[in-house]
Amino acid sequence: MTDNQKKIIFLIQCEDRKGILSATSTWFFQRSYNIVHCQQHTDNIEGRYFMRIELDMHDLKTTRKELEEDFGAFANQYNLTWECHYSDYNARVAIMVSKTSHCLYDLIARKNEGDLKCDISLIISNHPDLEVIANQFRIPFYYLPVTNESKAEQEAKVMTLLKRFDIDLVVLARYMQILSPAFTHQWQGKIINIHHGFLPAFQGANPYRQAYERGVKMIGATAHYASEELDQGPIIDQDVVRVNHELSPNGLRDVGKDVERRVLAKAVQAHLESRIIMFKNRTVVFDVER
Amino acid sequence: MTDNQKKIIFLIQCEDRKGILSATSTWFFQRSYNIVHCQQHTDNIEGRYFMRIELDMHDLKTTRKELEEDFGAFANQYNLTWECHYSDYNARVAIMVSKTSHCLYDLIARKNEGDLKCDISLIISNHPDLEVIANQFRIPFYYLPVTNESKAEQEAKVMTLLKRFDIDLVVLARYMQILSPAFTHQWQGKIINIHHGFLPAFQGANPYRQAYERGVKMIGATAHYASEELDQGPIIDQDVVRVNHELSPNGLRDVGKDVERRVLAKAVQAHLESRIIMFKNRTVVFDVER
Amino acid sequence: MTDNQKKIIFLIQCEDRKGILSATSTWFFQRSYNIVHCQQHTDNIEGRYFMRIELDMHDLKTTRKELEEDFGAFANQYNLTWECHYSDYNARVAIMVSKTSHCLYDLIARKNEGDLKCDISLIISNHPDLEVIANQFRIPFYYLPVTNESKAEQEAKVMTLLKRFDIDLVVLARYMQILSPAFTHQWQGKIINIHHGFLPAFQGANPYRQAYERGVKMIGATAHYASEELDQGPIIDQDVVRVNHELSPNGLRDVGKDVERRVLAKAVQAHLESRIIMFKNRTVVFDVER
Amino acid sequence: MTDNQKKIIFLIQCEDRKGILSATSTWFFQRSYNIVHCQQHTDNIEGRYFMRIELDMHDLKTTRKELEEDFGAFANQYNLTWECHYSDYNARVAIMVSKTSHCLYDLIARKNEGDLKCDISLIISNHPDLEVIANQFRIPFYYLPVTNESKAEQEAKVMTLLKRFDIDLVVLARYMQILSPAFTHQWQGKIINIHHGFLPAFQGANPYRQAYERGVKMIGATAHYASEELDQGPIIDQDVVRVNHELSPNGLRDVGKDVERRVLAKAVQAHLESRIIMFKNRTVVFDVER
Repeated sequence: MTDNQKKIIFLIQCEDRKGILSATSTWFFQRSYNIVHCQQHTDNIEGRYFMRIELDMHDLKTTRKELEEDFGAFANQYNLTWECHYSDYNARVAIMVSKTSHCLYDLIARKNEGDLKCDISLIISNHPDLEVIANQFRIPFYYLPVTNESKAEQEAKVMTLLKRFDIDLVVLARYMQILSPAFTHQWQGKIINIHHGFLPAFQGANPYRQAYERGVKMIGATAHYASEELDQGPIIDQDVVRVNHELSPNGLRDVGKDVERRVLAKAVQAHLESRIIMFKNRTVVFDVER
Repeated sequence: MTDNQKKIIFLIQCEDRKGILSATSTWFFQRSYNIVHCQQHTDNIEGRYFMRIELDMHDLKTTRKELEEDFGAFANQYNLTWECHYSDYNARVAIMVSKTSHCLYDLIARKNEGDLKCDISLIISNHPDLEVIANQFRIPFYYLPVTNESKAEQEAKVMTLLKRFDIDLVVLARYMQILSPAFTHQWQGKIINIHHGFLPAFQGANPYRQAYERGVKMIGATAHYASEELDQGPIIDQDVVRVNHELSPNGLRDVGKDVERRVLAKAVQAHLESRIIMFKNRTVVFDVER
Repeated sequence: MTDNQKKIIFLIQCEDRKGILSATSTWFFQRSYNIVHCQQHTDNIEGRYFMRIELDMHDLKTTRKELEEDFGAFANQYNLTWECHYSDYNARVAIMVSKTSHCLYDLIARKNEGDLKCDISLIISNHPDLEVIANQFRIPFYYLPVTNESKAEQEAKVMTLLKRFDIDLVVLARYMQILSPAFTHQWQGKIINIHHGFLPAFQGANPYRQAYERGVKMIGATAHYASEELDQGPIIDQDVVRVNHELSPNGLRDVGKDVERRVLAKAVQAHLESRIIMFKNRTVVFDVER
Repeated sequence: MTDNQKKIIFLIQCEDRKGILSATSTWFFQRSYNIVHCQQHTDNIEGRYFMRIELDMHDLKTTRKELEEDFGAFANQYNLTWECHYSDYNARVAIMVSKTSHCLYDLIARKNEGDLKCDISLIISNHPDLEVIANQFRIPFYYLPVTNESKAEQEAKVMTLLKRFDIDLVVLARYMQILSPAFTHQWQGKIINIHHGFLPAFQGANPYRQAYERGVKMIGATAHYASEELDQGPIIDQDVVRVNHELSPNGLRDVGKDVERRVLAKAVQAHLESRIIMFKNRTVVFDVER
């Protein structure tokens, strides 16, 4: 990233009312910030206003802490909920997997190509199978098997690792275990899961078998933030692919891999680029501008 | 349709075993039929074989009845389930609607442009609103209101009309009433419904409201044969469109209309072109060759 | 349209520089306008800034003329190029066709369903074939045949009609004549054409034949503003559909009709909803919010 | 691959005439082969017939050579052009790259996951940049730089390598050099190239810049067999992705990478699964059945 491309990003939400845009844009203008990009959304049903503001980091004449304190005072006055991100910070990502490698390969490749701006700090798995891939890319790999009995204990170990590695985001890249509500609650908005079905259809196990049984003509995948209730978290992205009678459940699974990796990568990228705002059980995902 | 384009179409299914293709193609070859197109599918899980054979009608040297009797004898020997269609026959179609016009307009326009080869013999509605469209296109319109109490009586009237007009196919083009199991049973495989959701997600009422609540990133529509259980019949076609947070339930509904009309038209066309074979709760839909 | 949904829409473009958003949003805020929706785009290569602002018409306390004069003064100061639209005004549309009916049917149906907010004031054709459709919908139809020799004369008659009917937008719905540069120049930004190919591929005549010859695996359609150079005007929307070896040029044409009508309708809708800003040979098309 | 899944595949083409299907299916039936899958296509414009037949390898009671000699005699009699493939043979693939890694990563990952049934025997590049990836996966890497002057010499080295490694298929995975007609001629039907544009639009260099300039609303990629004329070879697969005004040429390039890797992988897979028949400058690509 060249200096020219460095950005400060504010994600803001509040109750909808007149003048927010004017007040906010003027606040930045008066401090000599150039608003590189500003996107908004009003949910009229919820009466909720959402805004993403991208500033040129060159215009930053204070410390980051000062900027945030300064803006914090303004936000209090207008009752804004907000976050501030800096595009030169590389989020630290943990990937959790089981035995299937396609999403893992894809995330690593995209990171290496510069499309996912992050560090893949470690890989955690309940199976040893994918350690070979971790080794190829010299990423620390932790094999933490889990049984029904050892679930709490294993999750505690996972959480210890996430803390030790100072992880910002957990990506469940076909991790075939259900995380406990305690876990997902603690990491709310920081766990992205790929479900290999077009939610809310085909929740739970064996979605491709379910799809075959129902005779659907398209199959899909859904990337969502993990929530305490299984497969119910806020959806970030979905996609589908056309299928026909030629495909058995295994055929659907093979074809579906392509959608899974694409959807998961898009969701992770949107998160890393600070383009997502959550409200209740929905997401506002602002478009990319490149 | 020029004489050159006239086709005889056989739809065949049977238990899978060796030699069916050889026996069938040889049967037609020995009678000097040119097999213009032959499509097959084997469902290995069900052990079921499906075949669609298109013959040049020029090669017909007997009466249609003789051809069918002759083939019937062969089919008995090999235990085939089969149908025979002639592309110069215009199926007689009844369209059932309520208040929404987009699918109705679309079907009529496609019929008039020659893309749906059929007669639209009558329109039946439980509301008077769309009579004006029927009149524009000089199609008989029957207004048959329905209440919970009068349902059986109204359906009897509908069935009388279908018989009187010698109807081959009923298209539910956003007919917002649930047909009784008795009705759908009697017309099995001859009623195509458009559901304004991506089945099996969003069954039942208000799918666009459900989609908004769940925060999905794509919405879809599903055309299926009506069966005794609501929204559970064999799916013929599905499609989706990408949506985002900008759309309210009404916005989703508006955007969804486009998918609904497209999916319904494709399903009706596949049926009219004798490209669908049903088995259990699934369909084999052979591709078009034009 | 209920009073609640009435909007004032400003389309603005200018050289990019700091403070435009702040100045503009504050200008409206100070006059007690609620900015219902604000969308922006900066083209960094061109150094150009684009903005679409949607206001609640309830907040209008002056005449429309006063608002425009008032804003005009502000715009001069900041060197803005701008237009102002009112969503309660129904644009007057002329549709030009030749022999093919699918786009015409589709536009009329969408207008009748309320998805295209406009009046279809007249239909002009160089062939008499589609008069029957005009009559069905009681839309004035003008048959103006054209030969190479009579082209100038025919175009003069067309322009007279457009003036007499006070037309705002001309839609070329498969009008198979090339308009003269003089015509397109005079109606710049007010003629939308559908090209039955994925521009810039397959320019000129017989795109489906060209597509067959080249053996492409997808075919498409392109809606664009007509410009003085054939098939070179600013693109508004494009879409494609997957095809395969099964389709002859005629088959491609039949399958393509669906894409053509969809793309044309989307482009006309974007124009009617004041969501398009042109700059040089490109368009900024802001997303719909419904 | 379990023994159950092993298949013998015949790809056949000939002038269209009556009785080919009957004769061919009977030929196999008489030798006790089960036809697992049979797909056909008739190009009525060219008067050409295409067939793909999949047999169960269990039914092979002779040597492969005997089968081929035996079928060869039959094929001569009917004037068939044909190839025979065995699904237990792993094609030997050479990947040629320059500096961009996304397609290379993707092909290797898919091979490792079992979706591309082949050996990636070597990687050849005119730049040293991607050697690190080759090393990670322990694939031989040959750095063969090229200048205008050394082109013939470099190509000779490439061809020597292809022979030494007994290569069946060359994949140009963003190899940014134009192969000489002599090279492509010698390897006709055995070189698959990915072009980062929707052919025939945007041929030649910098397709994303061209796409930006033209203001298109979708960008695409095209996988095709390399032919003597640049970007003119038979197309195997294409796909597109929707874009908008937000994307600069670099943004288009980033978004396009996803389409490129998907399209290239699909084309390579179709080739490896013996699902492609070429005729003149077009391909028949039979659908997958899994």
